[in-house]
Amino acid sequence: MEIITVNASQKYDVIIGTGLLENCGEYVKKVTKAEKIALISDDNVSGIYSERVTASLKQEGFEVCLFTFPHGEASKCSDTLNRIYGFLAENHFTRTDCIAALGGGVTGDMAGYASATYLRGMDFIQLPTSLLAQVDSSVGGKTAIDIPEGKNLVGAFKQPKLVLCDTNALRTLPRDFLIDGMGEVVKYAMIKSAPLFDILSANDIDSIWNVMDEVIAKCVSIKRDVVEADEFDKGERMLLNFGHTLGHSIEQYYNYTGISHGRAVAKGMEMVTELSEKRKLCRNGLTDDLMTLLKKYCLDITVEPKASQLGNACLNDKKREGGSINIIICSDIGKSSAVKMTVGDFANFLE
Amino acid sequence: MEIITVNASQKYDVIIGTGLLENCGEYVKKVTKAEKIALISDDNVSGIYSERVTASLKQEGFEVCLFTFPHGEASKCSDTLNRIYGFLAENHFTRTDCIAALGGGVTGDMAGYASATYLRGMDFIQLPTSLLAQVDSSVGGKTAIDIPEGKNLVGAFKQPKLVLCDTNALRTLPRDFLIDGMGEVVKYAMIKSAPLFDILSANDIDSIWNVMDEVIAKCVSIKRDVVEADEFDKGERMLLNFGHTLGHSIEQYYNYTGISHGRAVAKGMEMVTELSEKRKLCRNGLTDDLMTLLKKYCLDITVEPKASQLGNACLNDKKREGGSINIIICSDIGKSSAVKMTVGDFANFLE
Repeated sequence: MEIITVNASQKYDVIIGTGLLENCGEYVKKVTKAEKIALISDDNVSGIYSERVTASLKQEGFEVCLFTFPHGEASKCSDTLNRIYGFLAENHFTRTDCIAALGGGVTGDMAGYASATYLRGMDFIQLPTSLLAQVDSSVGGKTAIDIPEGKNLVGAFKQPKLVLCDTNALRTLPRDFLIDGMGEVVKYAMIKSAPLFDILSANDIDSIWNVMDEVIAKCVSIKRDVVEADEFDKGERMLLNFGHTLGHSIEQYYNYTGISHGRAVAKGMEMVTELSEKRKLCRNGLTDDLMTLLKKYCLDITVEPKASQLGNACLNDKKREGGSINIIICSDIGKSSAVKMTVGDFANFLE
Repeated sequence: MEIITVNASQKYDVIIGTGLLENCGEYVKKVTKAEKIALISDDNVSGIYSERVTASLKQEGFEVCLFTFPHGEASKCSDTLNRIYGFLAENHFTRTDCIAALGGGVTGDMAGYASATYLRGMDFIQLPTSLLAQVDSSVGGKTAIDIPEGKNLVGAFKQPKLVLCDTNALRTLPRDFLIDGMGEVVKYAMIKSAPLFDILSANDIDSIWNVMDEVIAKCVSIKRDVVEADEFDKGERMLLNFGHTLGHSIEQYYNYTGISHGRAVAKGMEMVTELSEKRKLCRNGLTDDLMTLLKKYCLDITVEPKASQLGNACLNDKKREGGSINIIICSDIGKSSAVKMTVGDFANFLE
């Protein structure tokens, strides 16, 4: 079991290990004074885990109310959020009660946002069950929903009280979700860690299981360092956005249904690195190295739109500031920086 | 002109004086690096003030986009909020841009909440035009929308960068709105200030104009003190809720249309003081003193429901904590405290 402590505006532990869901109650009891817990989960994950999670929470004396919504990014919207608010009100949840997100990134983002805003803030616990959620979205306190105009455009910073990453949960994931999560894992290697890049290069989508706990802990600890340096996303934290500006635009192009987040980010990393290499903003051959790694994890994909067609969608990116946009560029493996471009320069960059 | 500085998580000035709307641009320029300002207003206020505000902002080089919504509490909902988000996205607002709320409490609460959540936070300016907004809702950083289950149940703490209280704006208010605002003014006197109670007692709804700037400054400075002591509403700040738990339930009883906020709060203060006196929780005769003052400001009203009928609606009050609810009680003029009651005790209290 690995424990990584995050010192953000609220201090909390990310615990990585096996069997954590079955025993979540004892961990949760230590971090909240809540009497009631709203367990929020999608219909896929709920069927597998909600019973054992509920049982463990009840054993510690919590009253548990389960809210289930249809799985998929399309649910991460204002309609589902309003249903969550209604559920919390009907069940008389109070400001000292707690929301627990059981599931992947969609669940964590939306349940976290509900916990940030219902009664102006309740306690929040993350129980991430996907690789993507364990290495990325459950840590750092970014919560959000999508609106028709773009992904994650509405949200709040809300640090959880606890994150329990049960790596057993990843075993029940469809292979597709594992591939999806590896997109963010490759991102961490690219922006901050040549050693992680080497571990990934020495494995592939099948053998990665042998080093999964180590890989997750490395990713979480990179994210922890970045979040501690810049909780509210004014500088350093932007690096985590490598591949995301174009990635989000690709997801939007496919209406958040045709292509998964991790694959879109992989494609975004590929596009931005290729463009960077063309403009001598990174070392020669970096795109090839990245592509070799992406292939090992089935993340070499083709998409319809060219980079130049995605420029307009990128203008709603949260990393934009007034007439400029911050693009993350890796000059080499493990070395990244934010480059501020005017909207015009960015359009040229994408050509 | 009076300037009251609020030292919350963000430091900002509340400026009280005349002609501030016509000259808002120069004040706004000092507090934000925004290039664009989303001016949010209802159809009543917009018609009177949006042109001169826009002109002043443009003179300082800001690009201004106006969003207008139908006036009234019914607009303070998820639908209008979603339209604001869409408006911000379509106009390519960024995290470094700014939202300005021009209007009363509904506008300030909703525009403030939009500024707290769009892109996880933009700059925010309050230009309150009602007495209620100037003395209460524009100061202190509480933002919210209503949901079908109750008022202000969804929200965020978001301190503005600046509050400009142009007392000229109050002159154009229908008398009804002035009365409404006086409900909160009486509240300040009751919870914290016997001198303010004396000033109010020496005047009435017509003569209060002669001392309006002083009254507003007194209220803002009481609120400032309370907010500085307890920005995130864990203790002291609860005092501001005097009359509000029952008041909100009265508003809900009338579906947020039959009775204005200030009147509902006045009735809530009356009910809770009457119940307190019956149970010897305040000095004898306090209810009479309060009623004498409320009459001077046309705030002695009758409502259909009895206190005992409002208990259930009160259970969704944000001041509730688990199985308890915090009720604010004044033991005398200017002396208030929070009394924690179990849900059962509270039901008995209301009988």
